[in-house]
Amino acid sequence: MRVSVPKEPTGRLSDAWRYCVGTGRFELALRRDYQDSLATVQREIGFRHIRGHGLLSDGVGIYRPYEHRGARRVHHSFTYVDQVVDAYLDLGIKPFLELGFMPAELASGDQTVFWWNGNVTPPRSWPEWADLVRATISHLVDRYGLAEVRGWPIEVWNEPNLKEFWAGADQEAYHRLYELTAHTVKEVDAELQVGGPALAPSAGDWLLRFADFVAARDVPVDFVSQHAYTSGSAQHVPFGTHQRLAPSSRLLEQFAGPGRKLRGTALAGLPVHITEFNSSYRPDNPIHDTALNAAYLAPVLAAGGDLVDSFSYWTFSDVFEEVGVPTALLHGGFGLLAHRQVKKPTYHLYAFMARMGDLLLTRGLDHLVTRDATGRVTVLAWAPVDISGRDASPTGHTVRLSIPLDAPQRTAFALRSSVSEEAGNAWAAWSAMGRPRSPDQRQLDLLRELAEPVRRHQALPIAGGRVDLDLTLDRHEVTLVEITAVADETPPWWDEDRLLGTGREER
Amino acid sequence: MRVSVPKEPTGRLSDAWRYCVGTGRFELALRRDYQDSLATVQREIGFRHIRGHGLLSDGVGIYRPYEHRGARRVHHSFTYVDQVVDAYLDLGIKPFLELGFMPAELASGDQTVFWWNGNVTPPRSWPEWADLVRATISHLVDRYGLAEVRGWPIEVWNEPNLKEFWAGADQEAYHRLYELTAHTVKEVDAELQVGGPALAPSAGDWLLRFADFVAARDVPVDFVSQHAYTSGSAQHVPFGTHQRLAPSSRLLEQFAGPGRKLRGTALAGLPVHITEFNSSYRPDNPIHDTALNAAYLAPVLAAGGDLVDSFSYWTFSDVFEEVGVPTALLHGGFGLLAHRQVKKPTYHLYAFMARMGDLLLTRGLDHLVTRDATGRVTVLAWAPVDISGRDASPTGHTVRLSIPLDAPQRTAFALRSSVSEEAGNAWAAWSAMGRPRSPDQRQLDLLRELAEPVRRHQALPIAGGRVDLDLTLDRHEVTLVEITAVADETPPWWDEDRLLGTGREER
Amino acid sequence: MRVSVPKEPTGRLSDAWRYCVGTGRFELALRRDYQDSLATVQREIGFRHIRGHGLLSDGVGIYRPYEHRGARRVHHSFTYVDQVVDAYLDLGIKPFLELGFMPAELASGDQTVFWWNGNVTPPRSWPEWADLVRATISHLVDRYGLAEVRGWPIEVWNEPNLKEFWAGADQEAYHRLYELTAHTVKEVDAELQVGGPALAPSAGDWLLRFADFVAARDVPVDFVSQHAYTSGSAQHVPFGTHQRLAPSSRLLEQFAGPGRKLRGTALAGLPVHITEFNSSYRPDNPIHDTALNAAYLAPVLAAGGDLVDSFSYWTFSDVFEEVGVPTALLHGGFGLLAHRQVKKPTYHLYAFMARMGDLLLTRGLDHLVTRDATGRVTVLAWAPVDISGRDASPTGHTVRLSIPLDAPQRTAFALRSSVSEEAGNAWAAWSAMGRPRSPDQRQLDLLRELAEPVRRHQALPIAGGRVDLDLTLDRHEVTLVEITAVADETPPWWDEDRLLGTGREER
Amino acid sequence: MRVSVPKEPTGRLSDAWRYCVGTGRFELALRRDYQDSLATVQREIGFRHIRGHGLLSDGVGIYRPYEHRGARRVHHSFTYVDQVVDAYLDLGIKPFLELGFMPAELASGDQTVFWWNGNVTPPRSWPEWADLVRATISHLVDRYGLAEVRGWPIEVWNEPNLKEFWAGADQEAYHRLYELTAHTVKEVDAELQVGGPALAPSAGDWLLRFADFVAARDVPVDFVSQHAYTSGSAQHVPFGTHQRLAPSSRLLEQFAGPGRKLRGTALAGLPVHITEFNSSYRPDNPIHDTALNAAYLAPVLAAGGDLVDSFSYWTFSDVFEEVGVPTALLHGGFGLLAHRQVKKPTYHLYAFMARMGDLLLTRGLDHLVTRDATGRVTVLAWAPVDISGRDASPTGHTVRLSIPLDAPQRTAFALRSSVSEEAGNAWAAWSAMGRPRSPDQRQLDLLRELAEPVRRHQALPIAGGRVDLDLTLDRHEVTLVEITAVADETPPWWDEDRLLGTGREER
Repeated sequence: MRVSVPKEPTGRLSDAWRYCVGTGRFELALRRDYQDSLATVQREIGFRHIRGHGLLSDGVGIYRPYEHRGARRVHHSFTYVDQVVDAYLDLGIKPFLELGFMPAELASGDQTVFWWNGNVTPPRSWPEWADLVRATISHLVDRYGLAEVRGWPIEVWNEPNLKEFWAGADQEAYHRLYELTAHTVKEVDAELQVGGPALAPSAGDWLLRFADFVAARDVPVDFVSQHAYTSGSAQHVPFGTHQRLAPSSRLLEQFAGPGRKLRGTALAGLPVHITEFNSSYRPDNPIHDTALNAAYLAPVLAAGGDLVDSFSYWTFSDVFEEVGVPTALLHGGFGLLAHRQVKKPTYHLYAFMARMGDLLLTRGLDHLVTRDATGRVTVLAWAPVDISGRDASPTGHTVRLSIPLDAPQRTAFALRSSVSEEAGNAWAAWSAMGRPRSPDQRQLDLLRELAEPVRRHQALPIAGGRVDLDLTLDRHEVTLVEITAVADETPPWWDEDRLLGTGREER
Repeated sequence: MRVSVPKEPTGRLSDAWRYCVGTGRFELALRRDYQDSLATVQREIGFRHIRGHGLLSDGVGIYRPYEHRGARRVHHSFTYVDQVVDAYLDLGIKPFLELGFMPAELASGDQTVFWWNGNVTPPRSWPEWADLVRATISHLVDRYGLAEVRGWPIEVWNEPNLKEFWAGADQEAYHRLYELTAHTVKEVDAELQVGGPALAPSAGDWLLRFADFVAARDVPVDFVSQHAYTSGSAQHVPFGTHQRLAPSSRLLEQFAGPGRKLRGTALAGLPVHITEFNSSYRPDNPIHDTALNAAYLAPVLAAGGDLVDSFSYWTFSDVFEEVGVPTALLHGGFGLLAHRQVKKPTYHLYAFMARMGDLLLTRGLDHLVTRDATGRVTVLAWAPVDISGRDASPTGHTVRLSIPLDAPQRTAFALRSSVSEEAGNAWAAWSAMGRPRSPDQRQLDLLRELAEPVRRHQALPIAGGRVDLDLTLDRHEVTLVEITAVADETPPWWDEDRLLGTGREER
Repeated sequence: MRVSVPKEPTGRLSDAWRYCVGTGRFELALRRDYQDSLATVQREIGFRHIRGHGLLSDGVGIYRPYEHRGARRVHHSFTYVDQVVDAYLDLGIKPFLELGFMPAELASGDQTVFWWNGNVTPPRSWPEWADLVRATISHLVDRYGLAEVRGWPIEVWNEPNLKEFWAGADQEAYHRLYELTAHTVKEVDAELQVGGPALAPSAGDWLLRFADFVAARDVPVDFVSQHAYTSGSAQHVPFGTHQRLAPSSRLLEQFAGPGRKLRGTALAGLPVHITEFNSSYRPDNPIHDTALNAAYLAPVLAAGGDLVDSFSYWTFSDVFEEVGVPTALLHGGFGLLAHRQVKKPTYHLYAFMARMGDLLLTRGLDHLVTRDATGRVTVLAWAPVDISGRDASPTGHTVRLSIPLDAPQRTAFALRSSVSEEAGNAWAAWSAMGRPRSPDQRQLDLLRELAEPVRRHQALPIAGGRVDLDLTLDRHEVTLVEITAVADETPPWWDEDRLLGTGREER
Repeated sequence: MRVSVPKEPTGRLSDAWRYCVGTGRFELALRRDYQDSLATVQREIGFRHIRGHGLLSDGVGIYRPYEHRGARRVHHSFTYVDQVVDAYLDLGIKPFLELGFMPAELASGDQTVFWWNGNVTPPRSWPEWADLVRATISHLVDRYGLAEVRGWPIEVWNEPNLKEFWAGADQEAYHRLYELTAHTVKEVDAELQVGGPALAPSAGDWLLRFADFVAARDVPVDFVSQHAYTSGSAQHVPFGTHQRLAPSSRLLEQFAGPGRKLRGTALAGLPVHITEFNSSYRPDNPIHDTALNAAYLAPVLAAGGDLVDSFSYWTFSDVFEEVGVPTALLHGGFGLLAHRQVKKPTYHLYAFMARMGDLLLTRGLDHLVTRDATGRVTVLAWAPVDISGRDASPTGHTVRLSIPLDAPQRTAFALRSSVSEEAGNAWAAWSAMGRPRSPDQRQLDLLRELAEPVRRHQALPIAGGRVDLDLTLDRHEVTLVEITAVADETPPWWDEDRLLGTGREER
């Protein structure tokens, strides 16, 4: 069965997929590997915003109490904040601010999360928390301008519905935090965008209670945020984790959740940001390094924009230390890029999306077709993923399309770029190399070479304003096909047969 | 039949193939495309010397007569010489100096060669020619140091046996030029290396007469130089040429010529430099852009070092204007790189050679096998070329090797990189695109992507200290296989089956 | 006498001074030194357009007649055009197109101009000239987009009123050329901007006759262009020229010329572009390398924008070959930059202008004062130039200003940057070094260091919303002072006296 | 009194001053600001080795115990080690390894030092410590080669004579640590260089006891190390410290200490490395940011090489977190460079040293004179420092030299580069700007401009093979004068008076 792609666009392809991307904790952005990786990502993908934890934690050093002449005072210091945000803006990406965690000296308790000890307890002084928020937002407005900062969403805390991230998962305490924070932000400027509650999946009625609370007390909310993951409980091995996955359609269901739940509440119709999503929520699950992950997420990238205003891949880089310093180059980190800019298959899924046109022609279970203003048609296609792991080798999936090409020419040029279990797959290469934990320079060069997509081109005849495209996909393949009509400039005297001087000379 | 590669090296692989590379006229080195291209070449190939025409021609502006107080004087000016040589040394490449052509104001006639009008007549003042040579060599010694310049061969003129390059192909006049020049160079420093006569192929007895002359008059000669090409007479089309080719073994025969001819003369045993070689001697023959050219030259690169001290590919880049400004991106230029650093298949042949080890294990009609100090074994293999053009599609050529791998491990990692009619072939992609004369930025990006070799990896079992390697080659394929024993660092708990959380959890 | 600078701006400072800059012939833009220099200029100055000769000359290779099957045809080739324009746009600068000179094979005569032989005769086939213009403009529109190219002024020929640039300075022939060219351009798109006649100074009634002609025949003219120079007849020395200069006010008078002359004609009110200006029109007059040149032109940059829409400094770089390859690093070239990015004093005049605010506060004979949106006040001041050369040492010129600073603070920070006969003067350093024609790497490094402006800072008290600024200028000094109110963040515990631990410790 | 500099060198200038430089803790080397700063330092100064704390601390993540199948095992992981050392070698600098501090999970106690919590207690398992050392050194040898690592000194721990750095300052425990570590290193390879005891100043008899211990037990020691500082007790202010300084000659006395003390012991004659030195040992003393610091240390750099094999400035960059995240751009950090590559005066002292020749002509209380192979003579001179702080303004110190210049020319070119209280002083500029804690981009640009040395040039007459050099120094000035004979290439027709065309024209 060949799918006939309609000639007229059905609308624009949402760019919710590139609105935001996740990152390791704030001060990791000072690292060179991080910045080189972000430069790579921005050059080939181009996200708009970046969101991560730890802005207010001790490693960034904003909250600085001191004593002078016997009095205790607090200094707010932005040395690292400015270095990071300057770098972000230089790289063409803007912050999606997350306000958290608690400075140790402002905390009411000593519960922490992660290897790097983010304190997750409420403030011991609510006015000092408000001062901290006010000083931070005001400083950013002073340095980068109000017009700029109004474009940066400001999210209050992270996953307060999990006791690991907010002491006791105490919703009442969170409401107090949210209310104070939102009002403080709006005091700086009423058009700054504040939101929350940044819920972890399976949050039950949290969101509804949050909606009730803010409605009841008239607390400002400009957007609603939640996270989405499809992995089950963790089976641990040393320095790693394995988990079952739900079908990736479950991610789309999670995306749809906040909007559905808020129907009829005061928050109905607000922008919804999925401020984190991925297959597994563990930074040490090797699934992130695989082609399976790319093929699994392809339909999510293709369709997620219908459901939410953004969904932010967690995270762009393996420069990330939530469970400590990684012990091997490929260690199951969240990154689109491993350390040292080694590209994973999911990186290419995003890079392929970035080459799609903005006019949506059609979308199916295994394909997405777009066109751009120049008439170039692009097809993203992907092999189905068997999450049971039983079907060891589902190769040979086919996608057959009839594609409209509104051009007088007779031939089209098709460039096909692919990643799969075999191709464009640093993980597979690294495995075959014996999984060197700390590859040497030559091995890194080989990995980078083998991480590039395989690319082929072919000529397709245009007949009746259409070309037929038949794609046979390898196991876990994600493929991008870019089709343009050929404007033939071959001169009339060109004769391939004469290349070796053996053709008949023209007189 | 499987070839059993010997375990012990038979010697070192000569690096005569990388001793020198050709270039367009001297002042083209001021261009950015040229320098960017040379940087690319040096990073991935790494030539030692670079040789081209025009050092003394008007475009470089060394010879500058003027009048002052009624007297005629000559100023020697090195503004561009220094800019070019500074750039060369920065890029890690040294000049192979060619002394020519004649400054117009010093020339005895007005015959020129090339679109850029190199004057090919003897000097009208022999003392002024000697002054020009002396000033130039002395200046280089002053600026770069005597030790450095002693390492730069100095060749007198270019192809004086052709009347296009030396008025009347007058051998007696060349001998006079050579004698004066060689003595002048040696006056600057006796250890500077001077040579010639830079003959075009089919030079008959020129070389013997040159040997007789220098012996009779005790003229210094430190090396002998000649050129080698295998193309026949030119069939012209607009902006292009087609020619028949002799088998590439004919190049090796030409390499062997000077040494053979000089046996028994006073010049016997001198270093021989092939200061130009290629398939076609025309800068507008599309053969240079093809995979055929790479497959055709592969056996020459593999074996040429047995015959001569160097053989210099003419040329590294299409930044070259002997027949005018090119009218299309791919126009049959000599370059390893087209304009804008688009890599041709022959570029990759050289890049593959640069990844070979320095210990020669074996060499055959379609393969070369080496090892390096780390134990890495590399195989260069190539498909045979049918220069009759009759066999339209000689695909499926096989090379089967048994390769020694002195390692205790059980598996080897093999990375295979290939270019062919289909793969890693900018020419094929450009043809399929409709041969855009001036590709836009997107097309250039695609061409660069499609110009990269296709790379695959595989695991090979090591048995009895050997691995079996079976290569099936596509039409005009040149392939590099790099084989290393795998030091397996896979941890004992790794179980691929658990990737999706579905394996049995270990207790 | 202290000048009291008004608090309210009198208008905006025109940016006519940066609208355009001149360049050597078109294909020199392929050079690396050229592009590196342009990158430097764009980073620190930021011109909008660039204009030079030779687009249609043989070195660019557009016009390419050939024979095929017995017929003569013409191919238009854009290999170099695209490389250059791509580079310009990458560097943030747009072409100001000049259509000329004549391809040799299209020319009706063999008269040429410059060392590089630009043919200055009318076409031998007017239809082929029109084809050449049409193909060129159409190609640019295809490649860069109509919206973009509509922003590039298109000027017809160069200085047709000089017989060196247009055979016989034949005005009737020029009118024919202009008419055909302008109509051809407008056929491509009616909103493209075409103009002329690019007159050399002292053009007599040329402009009026041109106005009469285009009015009479209804020929499109979107702007009028003329050149301005103040040097007298040339006294030649080997590789150099000396000339008397008129006062620089004469440049402003020349700027005003076209507008004045065209009053009452059909061309009245059209934009006027001074498409070339400088002190001397000779590329080998050392005046261009001096601080005198900067001080001489400072009042012209400060005031020229009142008179014309642009005035284009001829030229940004010494990569320029109108009288041949330069024989010394500093050779009197037009460039703001010498070869290898050595900055001349006039470069800094432009870089200073680029740091001025866009609100004009006041302007005097020796100063220009502006403010920007942040409240920063900038003062450009310059020493007077004695063009008689009699006053050997007019140092000690003073400028005294009372400057409004609308800020509550008590102190201002003033950064002063200067170039003069002594400071920031590569020419002076090079002269002291013995005028090395081809400086070595160490000398180039020293020259670059000594070419930087001398910079000082001082604190100025703010009293009554004003600061007093007293500037004493060295010989031929041009100085920029940037004044900002100090937002003092010094902590209360800071005590300079305690730096060495010797102050009284606070308890 | 003019000092007559001898014509013949008295020896070579030791490069002990550049043998090593200090750095913040190991993993800070992952930061971009750090690497950019190190690149700057290497380009202009060029240190050979780099030494800092924390290689074995938790932030680097080498020591990684885990459980598998019920057994506890230790994995040694080098993810960050390799990233850092790869970066060092790319930047042309080699590690000077310091083995410490203790991984938390291997520690016998919980005492830590610094904001970043380096554990300073002995191992709870000595065999696991030995394993950690062995694994680390073996890994480095495997990755970088034995020849390379033999060139990296390996120092055991840091300042064990201070109880802050080694629990209880327990010398017996240190001896046990040293003995085990040194033997373990030598087991990897007997030619690796191991040493200690890295004493803080004022170590009393520690060194003698160490010498006795290693002699008695035949423990390997390849070099002896100690630290040197001249600051007194700290007076604290918020985020800062003030201290009295001893005269800088006290640093030289400290350098001389180990060699003097070890005379007659088994360690006599061993290489001595001062592995840390500076004025103040506090990372928050503003003295480090001042010109005083440069003038104070100038005589130490000039003479230190007579006393020891190296003395390592602590540290090259303000990327350093021992007392937390810095709260202002200039905060008294140790760095030669502040954050964001803002150069401090002491940076320039080192950059001046890097431009000195290698032949020592003479040395005095306020000057150092050298020559290089090209005949260039360099003078480093400095103003005296009054550490009492009483003499507020000791300007006008003069240095008068008669300098031999063995050249036939009549004139010398002298380039003088200076930093002082006023010039080339980012601290002074920053103070005048109001001490902005987090300067914006424009302020950073100004600071970088004002941080460059002031440079002047002058012509000096050569008479009798000598030039007279008179230097008047500003407050805390450090100045470099580079003197070369002028090879005058001025052409005979050059006449400065003709510049404005007003001279007499030559006929």
